[in-house]
Amino acid sequence: MASKAATSEESAGKGMLMKADAIADAFRTEVKMSLRACTRPPKLVGILSTSSAPSRSYAMFTKNQCEELGVEFLLITSGAAKSNELGEGEGVEEAIIEANEDESVDGIMVYYPIFGVQQDHYLQQVISPVKDVEGLNVKFHYNLYHNVRFIKPASLLSTVSTPTVAITAVSDNSPPGTVKSILPCTPLAIVKCLEYVGVYNKILKYGDRAYGKIITVINRSEVVGRPLAALLANDGARVFSADIDSIQEYTKRPSLPMSRNSETDGPAARRYYPHHVVHPCGQTLEACLGVSDVVISAVPNASYKVPTAWLKDGCVCVNVASEKNFEKDVREKASIYLPSVGKVTVLMLLRNLLRLRHYNELLKES
Amino acid sequence: MASKAATSEESAGKGMLMKADAIADAFRTEVKMSLRACTRPPKLVGILSTSSAPSRSYAMFTKNQCEELGVEFLLITSGAAKSNELGEGEGVEEAIIEANEDESVDGIMVYYPIFGVQQDHYLQQVISPVKDVEGLNVKFHYNLYHNVRFIKPASLLSTVSTPTVAITAVSDNSPPGTVKSILPCTPLAIVKCLEYVGVYNKILKYGDRAYGKIITVINRSEVVGRPLAALLANDGARVFSADIDSIQEYTKRPSLPMSRNSETDGPAARRYYPHHVVHPCGQTLEACLGVSDVVISAVPNASYKVPTAWLKDGCVCVNVASEKNFEKDVREKASIYLPSVGKVTVLMLLRNLLRLRHYNELLKES
Repeated sequence: MASKAATSEESAGKGMLMKADAIADAFRTEVKMSLRACTRPPKLVGILSTSSAPSRSYAMFTKNQCEELGVEFLLITSGAAKSNELGEGEGVEEAIIEANEDESVDGIMVYYPIFGVQQDHYLQQVISPVKDVEGLNVKFHYNLYHNVRFIKPASLLSTVSTPTVAITAVSDNSPPGTVKSILPCTPLAIVKCLEYVGVYNKILKYGDRAYGKIITVINRSEVVGRPLAALLANDGARVFSADIDSIQEYTKRPSLPMSRNSETDGPAARRYYPHHVVHPCGQTLEACLGVSDVVISAVPNASYKVPTAWLKDGCVCVNVASEKNFEKDVREKASIYLPSVGKVTVLMLLRNLLRLRHYNELLKES
Repeated sequence: MASKAATSEESAGKGMLMKADAIADAFRTEVKMSLRACTRPPKLVGILSTSSAPSRSYAMFTKNQCEELGVEFLLITSGAAKSNELGEGEGVEEAIIEANEDESVDGIMVYYPIFGVQQDHYLQQVISPVKDVEGLNVKFHYNLYHNVRFIKPASLLSTVSTPTVAITAVSDNSPPGTVKSILPCTPLAIVKCLEYVGVYNKILKYGDRAYGKIITVINRSEVVGRPLAALLANDGARVFSADIDSIQEYTKRPSLPMSRNSETDGPAARRYYPHHVVHPCGQTLEACLGVSDVVISAVPNASYKVPTAWLKDGCVCVNVASEKNFEKDVREKASIYLPSVGKVTVLMLLRNLLRLRHYNELLKES
């Protein structure tokens, strides 16, 4: 059945079907190399607290990936995942607190959704930033939105926001005394996929390698759509961010006619990193898609489909939803179609795990 | 017009109409006393970034209250509040960052809603906990949910969660080296109103003065309903928390038949403060209201009304929504009806302002 589906998918058009496996392989090798340098394997705790079948299968997938690579993975179940006598999500917060306090634990991930957007967001903030492998702490989102790429390790322990003007970098290497900020896994995985398929141009300077690209991101949640749009704009792209009731334009280029940064960036004395500015956009989704080099869709609704007819010929399409957001004939228009990014996401999570463990060691030394 | 409305409201039933003014007066006196002891007036920054008329009038109300009491109030406008050329919410985050960094500012409040629940929640976390007079930082919610009433001032600067077992208190006074945690304004104002109208029984011991009361809270948002239900349960009440798709029971009493805390509270070695535990509740809203001594409704929908017919005779009803959630004849059943709490809320905000300024002074001394 699976192979039949793959075959019919492969013959569905002329564009290339790009499975995430090849992209994941490159990072799997990188993670393996880093693990070889570890004196003890890092320990990741996964917390499953609902009866959701997709969450359980994602937990098993994480476990397999970890064990294959030599990362210690401990699955903790609570609530409805533990017993059908217990409520959905019961005990999840206590499990997080215990993992926060357990010195043998290097990273914590929680299988969402549990209680709904608001209460889940609360839970995401209960996880210590030092163990937040998913990168969902507001601290990391703040750094992302403000294009703060390098941080001092001690900032992970402080509620004072990272200064937005202190450190500048001209390359991918951290300036002395700093480390890379943690990026949320899913948006980061999407960026890595776009790098792999050539959307990012390495001949351009670091931090501006998506310059010239127009990208539409459909979804504006705090977990996927908004951080992704900001990341891409901070890397130079012009981004249309679409959600159910509006379209916004994200750009960091002050010279565009729509930009009003002299009014919105505050007094001239206050210097920020160049980072994305958001403007309302008067265009329709159809018009945005018609000029977009890349279309990324993450709408959690099985009936939502991006009309192939609206796509620009030769664009790159990335599906991030569990039910496909693109029509079967997407490759009639798309030059490259990525049906999922999940296999890359879990490797970004393991990369974050290795980084956070290193940052934690630096904190203990100092 | 206003006096006519008041008259018709007053004659609507036999129960008492309890305006918030009298309750606010008591706290206004307390705030005045505290201000007299200040060497310089505290400075509150209000940030208005939308064209919303209710937000603007609430901003003016805050300003008047501050000026009447001798608190310095600075209204900063950005985005659509500043010019109709600018977008809703434009520049609000930059305004928060500047107020965070401005040493002359003691407290920051932002007029919501701006971007919607998710992005507004992000903004709430950008405000420094040391200046968060509204008490919307996850740190304060965490303390509330875990019934942590006293904190060390330095914990405001740290991302490490307050230990839930370190400090115990038997009275309203802070143990040495600790100060009171900050509570979110609206839930706190509601508790103060309930104390005023006699729902809390002062003959019972501190921290358990709502014991014996059954309270229904309609709304389970992270800003009002959930923290309120937890506060009331932590003070001893049995609480039904109702939202659009479920009813839950919040209680801290382990002896109730529905409680399963031996399974959900984790290993016996791990001690938490006694705090609310949440269970699914199989009853209908009508059944919950029929046994409730107090009904609090905060549904942001003009067409939502609690049916008077469902209320228990002699109950206390509190409306927290801007459009009234109770029917005109509510006082046919309610012994006491509070149509709004806004005037008390702003005083809780000023109390938080004075506290945070004091905590900040303690931090600078140490």
